Amino acid sequence: MPEPTKPLLRALAGEEVWPPPVWLMRQAGRYLPEYRAVRAGVKDFVALCTTPELAAEVTLQPIRRYGFDAAILFSDILILPWALGHGLEFKEGEGPVLPKLRDAAGLAALDPARVADAVAPVMETVRRVRAGLAREGFGQTALIGFAGAPFTVACYMVEGGGSRDFAATRAMAYADPGLFGGLMDKLTEATIGYLSAQAEAGAEVLMLFDSWAGVLSPSLFRQHVVGPATRIVSELNRRHPGIPVIGFPRLAGLMIGEYAATGVNAIGMDTSMDLARAAALLPDGIAMQGNLDPMALVAGGDALFAEVDTILLAMKRRPFIFNLGHGIVPQTPPEHVKALVERVRAA
Amino acid sequence: MPEPTKPLLRALAGEEVWPPPVWLMRQAGRYLPEYRAVRAGVKDFVALCTTPELAAEVTLQPIRRYGFDAAILFSDILILPWALGHGLEFKEGEGPVLPKLRDAAGLAALDPARVADAVAPVMETVRRVRAGLAREGFGQTALIGFAGAPFTVACYMVEGGGSRDFAATRAMAYADPGLFGGLMDKLTEATIGYLSAQAEAGAEVLMLFDSWAGVLSPSLFRQHVVGPATRIVSELNRRHPGIPVIGFPRLAGLMIGEYAATGVNAIGMDTSMDLARAAALLPDGIAMQGNLDPMALVAGGDALFAEVDTILLAMKRRPFIFNLGHGIVPQTPPEHVKALVERVRAA
Repeated sequence: MPEPTKPLLRALAGEEVWPPPVWLMRQAGRYLPEYRAVRAGVKDFVALCTTPELAAEVTLQPIRRYGFDAAILFSDILILPWALGHGLEFKEGEGPVLPKLRDAAGLAALDPARVADAVAPVMETVRRVRAGLAREGFGQTALIGFAGAPFTVACYMVEGGGSRDFAATRAMAYADPGLFGGLMDKLTEATIGYLSAQAEAGAEVLMLFDSWAGVLSPSLFRQHVVGPATRIVSELNRRHPGIPVIGFPRLAGLMIGEYAATGVNAIGMDTSMDLARAAALLPDGIAMQGNLDPMALVAGGDALFAEVDTILLAMKRRPFIFNLGHGIVPQTPPEHVKALVERVRAA
Repeated sequence: MPEPTKPLLRALAGEEVWPPPVWLMRQAGRYLPEYRAVRAGVKDFVALCTTPELAAEVTLQPIRRYGFDAAILFSDILILPWALGHGLEFKEGEGPVLPKLRDAAGLAALDPARVADAVAPVMETVRRVRAGLAREGFGQTALIGFAGAPFTVACYMVEGGGSRDFAATRAMAYADPGLFGGLMDKLTEATIGYLSAQAEAGAEVLMLFDSWAGVLSPSLFRQHVVGPATRIVSELNRRHPGIPVIGFPRLAGLMIGEYAATGVNAIGMDTSMDLARAAALLPDGIAMQGNLDPMALVAGGDALFAEVDTILLAMKRRPFIFNLGHGIVPQTPPEHVKALVERVRAA
């Protein structure tokens, strides 16, 4: 395989790239007026995710504005359970609403045979973004495909939506390990197929979002976060050698070192992570990604620059990708994003 | 000072007590039918916290059932801002609702001169519980007083209630450090006075709950979690030598080692903490407390015992207090608590 030349791919290959590549989680989103204009014209959020022309357009919007080093497929972590036949609705101001999966019948109803057709528009979006990046002259911007990690997806399916602590999910993991394990296995296999299809369609990097990994005890974290990620990474590596994988086990805390054993090329650091302390727990070759507090980006000014500079100082001697520690929030002033990118690129 | 004889106090003095002392966060609560009976007879939750006869009664209920090694004052972390003159209401199924503190006028309205009178019933509760423990023959059970840590209390005051990520609070910490710092200073001094009064009334241990410490970036964690706790512990140690302090910086993750520098005698571990990994980051003399997943207690049976045994195995060689990693939940079967206590005491 030829050596990668895009900064993001070089960092993911273990190279110290300086200034570091930069992109932001949820960089295509409501803080951008051009996104809101597209969103206003579609019926619902699922329609936006599954209309390739529009999904590709919003994916490219932040690249045009800021020249980020990565474009990330515009989609949602709940598109996979939706493709498996599980219901999904986004209610205004309330987040996702799903049926509650609580028994063997709910598990049996998930149909892997439906997935390929259902996610065909997502693959078309991937192809269009790759073509768009080339056509619009963003030759240094890499395209990231993604999926929710099985545990986080299971959280939403069991609870029927968001939750502060996903108590019903944890209760099921303890009280009915057969049912919960069956759900995790089905999601793990479906995730492999879904990410693999994105790689075939042109994704150059794959990312696994485990947003709720931090609600688990260490034993459940090993079983339902580290286990499935290890299986997914190893199978993706077999099918798509050379396509790096970024894992994001949010709020993993002291478990971050164990997560590195999954074989991911990079680990996303959430906002709470002290980067120097985390680096000491990770192998040298693994890239780190993160972890500016999105609220520092809202604040802007000196508070923003102080946090950015602290991150840059801690990460100068290792493969690193600058990002937020959580998704960008709608009230972020777009000019603060510009100031952030300039600060990172001046490092 | 004489050597302590109660198991909890011995563990807090740095002794390896085995089997370890055991109590549970929110052990006086809705999972107990005798608690629900008392609760049904009062107007609201604040009334329950500020009626000494009733608050003392519910504090003692779990001790009578399970013989825990600690009784913890029945109160709420928001009683202190309420005593400072900030509004507080508990709405059924919704949690606390408070006015939103967002400006200098809101800060100036907090009146430390009101506190002593407002919390007088809490001090009477402390006296009644101490007397009740002695009268009812619980000579080995120590009484814990507590307060919310300034950051967590500030979270509820700024947001006007609970929140998933306390975004407005973090935004204020970055964008208006003068206002937020002023609030933190005022809460820190009030917390010292409040805990000090509890010690004078008979509390044998003081605990500081920083439930939302984990939402902060490392720099804000140092400033608003470690800083205030250090000030509070040092002043309490000066005023009440021999009264140990337990800190609970929930979801502190990799910052747990820095928290030890506050001078607390013990640190509460949340559910996510791998105890052996955490122990490696802490000085030997400091006690650890925790960290069973409350949902394992709901599940009961083998899943419960496996988690309990893992914790006991990891903590056998250091000062340790068995507890949950988060508060007990209302749907917990009381007989599971009995099985848990028996398992710990058979260690």
